[in-house]
Amino acid sequence: MEDPQCESEARALQAVSDKLRQARLKYEKLKALGASLDMTRGKPGADQLDLSQGLFECLRPEDYKTANGVDCRNYGGLDGIPEIREIFADLLEVPPSQVIAAGNSSLSLMYGAFSELCAKGVSGEKPWLLQNGAKFICPAPGYDRHFAICEHFGIKMETVGLSDSGPDMDAVEALAKDPSVKGMWCVPMFSNPTGCVYSAETVKRLASLNPAAKDFRLFWDDAYFIHQFGPKKIHQGNILKECEACSNPDLALVFASFSKVTFPGASVAAVAASKANLSWVRNRMSKEMVGPDKLNQLRHARFFKNADGVLEHMQKMSKLLKPKFDTVLSSLERNLSGACTWSKPEGGYFISLNTPDGCAKRAIELSKEAGVAVTGAGATFPYGVDPRDRNIRLAPSFPAIGDLKLAVEIFCAACNLAALEKEAGI
Amino acid sequence: MEDPQCESEARALQAVSDKLRQARLKYEKLKALGASLDMTRGKPGADQLDLSQGLFECLRPEDYKTANGVDCRNYGGLDGIPEIREIFADLLEVPPSQVIAAGNSSLSLMYGAFSELCAKGVSGEKPWLLQNGAKFICPAPGYDRHFAICEHFGIKMETVGLSDSGPDMDAVEALAKDPSVKGMWCVPMFSNPTGCVYSAETVKRLASLNPAAKDFRLFWDDAYFIHQFGPKKIHQGNILKECEACSNPDLALVFASFSKVTFPGASVAAVAASKANLSWVRNRMSKEMVGPDKLNQLRHARFFKNADGVLEHMQKMSKLLKPKFDTVLSSLERNLSGACTWSKPEGGYFISLNTPDGCAKRAIELSKEAGVAVTGAGATFPYGVDPRDRNIRLAPSFPAIGDLKLAVEIFCAACNLAALEKEAGI
Repeated sequence: MEDPQCESEARALQAVSDKLRQARLKYEKLKALGASLDMTRGKPGADQLDLSQGLFECLRPEDYKTANGVDCRNYGGLDGIPEIREIFADLLEVPPSQVIAAGNSSLSLMYGAFSELCAKGVSGEKPWLLQNGAKFICPAPGYDRHFAICEHFGIKMETVGLSDSGPDMDAVEALAKDPSVKGMWCVPMFSNPTGCVYSAETVKRLASLNPAAKDFRLFWDDAYFIHQFGPKKIHQGNILKECEACSNPDLALVFASFSKVTFPGASVAAVAASKANLSWVRNRMSKEMVGPDKLNQLRHARFFKNADGVLEHMQKMSKLLKPKFDTVLSSLERNLSGACTWSKPEGGYFISLNTPDGCAKRAIELSKEAGVAVTGAGATFPYGVDPRDRNIRLAPSFPAIGDLKLAVEIFCAACNLAALEKEAGI
Repeated sequence: MEDPQCESEARALQAVSDKLRQARLKYEKLKALGASLDMTRGKPGADQLDLSQGLFECLRPEDYKTANGVDCRNYGGLDGIPEIREIFADLLEVPPSQVIAAGNSSLSLMYGAFSELCAKGVSGEKPWLLQNGAKFICPAPGYDRHFAICEHFGIKMETVGLSDSGPDMDAVEALAKDPSVKGMWCVPMFSNPTGCVYSAETVKRLASLNPAAKDFRLFWDDAYFIHQFGPKKIHQGNILKECEACSNPDLALVFASFSKVTFPGASVAAVAASKANLSWVRNRMSKEMVGPDKLNQLRHARFFKNADGVLEHMQKMSKLLKPKFDTVLSSLERNLSGACTWSKPEGGYFISLNTPDGCAKRAIELSKEAGVAVTGAGATFPYGVDPRDRNIRLAPSFPAIGDLKLAVEIFCAACNLAALEKEAGI
């Protein structure tokens, strides 16, 4: 006579085994298509770049002077030209005097500031490298290039969690009491990769932070500041104004760029900060260069005319990007078993997906073997180690929609298979 | 009865006093013209910039791909595009694989490398900031921005003399025996400000330097590498090849740019080095940016076509610059009393002038009061202190020739007056 418990276990195992077989079949079938698709990086698609073709011809040969008469072809003008500073200032809602416009990369501005804090210091404090064991707060999942900068200089990363409203503020406030904690990475709007938008409450709490270290700085990477899909700007509060209101004017350095607005390879970046912080930035820059590429700044100013021009441009951009996100999201909905969860961002460049614990590495590996590359496992965590091995970053922007459909289907098959392998104890 | 010695002294004093009065009269007469002229910085004149107007239109909207198919509008390509690396490589006489092409400033490349040595280190050595009392060799008169970088990071400057054939190599070799001496600034071709060209012998001695510090680096600022006035390139020897021949492949980092070739505000810079050094540079850059402005690189590649195109362009450039230098030199010849000496460079951007000891500061002050600004006193020496207070840097490029004539006449009157004041003990 049969044992009913054994029988039910056997049936359950059989069910898993059946599902696993089906999942493997589906995966192998898709793998056989021999795809070669890439969802690794937040790289704009060619259609997005085409929106900025006007940049090639908007600057005429006789048009090389700013309104205040500066010849943009020649040396000088460390702060950038007034025309482009004004556009950034309007978009960031600060006065132009609080903005320096620079070269083609906000990452360079961040690296420059970080490197300077390590090697030179700020607020009369010693360089971080000469203080013992400087640390940095890293909300995670986060941006791998931020973490790489910390690691490069040997600054210890302290991971804090990230919810839909931003970083775990209790953890941040507790860490900031330690004088060796020197700052924090923030991607406040459409965070990379979760797409979360720091709430107005979170922004306020960050602005009123009372860190033990005088040389503590928020690295406010506003990479997606105007990258919402909808027509309405999401209210978040202005970090520089909030910091000022909290008598904390020097707490934040704000970074932004037009990298994902025009041409990532030939764009304009900016830093906004308090007067004291800008003097500090300017002091470094004055040693580092005679001035930024003013012609490219003028080219961008001519192309956009003003901040409204940028916002109109971004609406065209979202008309191209939103369908790609919709494609990915509906395909995830359709193809993924219930074991995974994912973000549904209202802007930015990424979708963040969580597999069951312990499955991300395998899912990424399977996906890659079937011809679909997504961002490497662990990349969204400090030191490249995802403690629960579950987070995967998807970047929908670069592939064409048709490719995207197939890519996500393959990726989902890989995720499902990885989850079932785990369930079956393989 | 009169004492003949007293009489001769009185006559001599009278003569000085007469000359002083005449010099003062001449100076006041020129001052009364109310000029406002600037010979402070090595800034190209508008006529020089006009030579590159083709850059505005040489890149058509459909022309954004490199020969190997890279879309220059998008992210990526840390090393720069092959087309522009090849042009730099040909001009620097190294293989393209030894060149990284970057943004608009070689100063930024130098600052970046220097800052990295301070904060991160090279060759497995600790960062300079964590080694006690790192020092740097500074040939002087030299470039103020080099010295400013050392000072910024608190790296002690060791001044060595500079003759027509380059730095005092005995002094350099002696200093390099100290393990805390970490490197040296070099402007090997048409040195700023003396215009001297390091001899082939000097280049060889530098390449065969045997520094005690493993992390010693020559910062080879080849700012004027193709800036000769005559049609023939001056033979100097190739530092990277010489270093390799001396089994010292990692000794030198070579920096160059098109800043004074096209538009200083919107140009392309490059670094050339050994494979190991380039990997080190690339490691930093990979944390600092996703890639340089590739469109501007492509624009330059289209404009010049190849290295010969650059050299032809530079011949047109020298046709504009040489007459300015001739104007200054002949005016110095005509207007200066015998007390001053000056360089007669065959290229580059500056004329270096020595007043009698203790007169430079006063001459510069008088010149400024009469409406002609030249580079600040002491600027050509570490810490801004010229120990003999005699060196003045003149930059003839920016003013128009007519202005230049007047500017130099005024400057000479200031120099003569300062020298006579000194002689008269005022």
